[in-house]
Amino acid sequence: MSRTKGEESKRKLLQVAEELFAKKGYQSTKISEIVANAGLTQAAFYLYFKSKEDIFQQMLEDFDQQLIYLSDVGKKAVELSPKDVKSYVTNMFIQLFTVLGKNPNLTKIALQHATDSDRIRKKIVEQIANNMSNNQRFGIVKEEIDTWIAAESIVAVTERLVNRYLLTREKTEEELGEQVAQMFLSGILNHLKSGD
Amino acid sequence: MSRTKGEESKRKLLQVAEELFAKKGYQSTKISEIVANAGLTQAAFYLYFKSKEDIFQQMLEDFDQQLIYLSDVGKKAVELSPKDVKSYVTNMFIQLFTVLGKNPNLTKIALQHATDSDRIRKKIVEQIANNMSNNQRFGIVKEEIDTWIAAESIVAVTERLVNRYLLTREKTEEELGEQVAQMFLSGILNHLKSGD
Repeated sequence: MSRTKGEESKRKLLQVAEELFAKKGYQSTKISEIVANAGLTQAAFYLYFKSKEDIFQQMLEDFDQQLIYLSDVGKKAVELSPKDVKSYVTNMFIQLFTVLGKNPNLTKIALQHATDSDRIRKKIVEQIANNMSNNQRFGIVKEEIDTWIAAESIVAVTERLVNRYLLTREKTEEELGEQVAQMFLSGILNHLKSGD
Repeated sequence: MSRTKGEESKRKLLQVAEELFAKKGYQSTKISEIVANAGLTQAAFYLYFKSKEDIFQQMLEDFDQQLIYLSDVGKKAVELSPKDVKSYVTNMFIQLFTVLGKNPNLTKIALQHATDSDRIRKKIVEQIANNMSNNQRFGIVKEEIDTWIAAESIVAVTERLVNRYLLTREKTEEELGEQVAQMFLSGILNHLKSGD
């Protein structure tokens, strides 16, 4: 995939800004430092962003979109054969931890900004709960599960494990994804005979 | 059970202090208000506590002891018949939510004081992980479970559900305890045939 020069500059600015925000904090970072570190001009910056606030918001929105996409995994469950649901969900957990681990600076920023993280958390919880409720009607999710409690729990565990084990590099994305799947899936999904 | 007058006064001071700290914050609460609201004298206060800091610390320590006791549930697992483990653990989760829900002010204080909650959280996680590792050797906990990840996850879920559903009174202690058990136990415990 080739990127245009403009896309490349924009991506570079976002990446440098992310590093500086995480290292020095949002307040102490100047646009002049972002452009200097990116090897670009102030004029180039203003081609893509209105302000420092704007680049920060775009950065968080891109990140949020990835998280929302990955946590929408439940939507696909109805299209899968029952025996594939578990491995599909496990892989999506691994991908989720991969995105969070690949962008440690952004993950730190996102988890630290309570207002932003509350907004995105709420949306993700709602999406997981709605998908689970739908899957419950199809018999994929156990009848006795309160889908809102389960959704809150999954998000809480993901956040805690990111902070505790992923950002510290004590565990890999695979280990965390597999453990989360191992802990939750037998309790939440109906055990369907393989081959069903 | 009869309490001595001294025990009764101390308990009353702790209870009033808890209410005032939660309502007005620790900083804004004066010892004079605590004693006035408890219908006691300053002299009585200083019989039991050295300072405002001291009553606060004693309050948190009592609370911590209860939480530590209840989260030590795994220790008993080896003494139970396999089919009783699940209901035993479920009941302890319900009791844990009951203690947290019965002391909403203290729970709010404890969850808000990051330093204290980190200290107690660490201890509880360690205790659960150690009990689980021991139970793993007895075949009660599944071989493939990373007991530290599981312990962190259980604590994270408990905290989140307390904040989100218990303190808001949207769910009962029983609902939360049963859901936590439902979600986690099939993934963590080995399925032993009933009657084993």
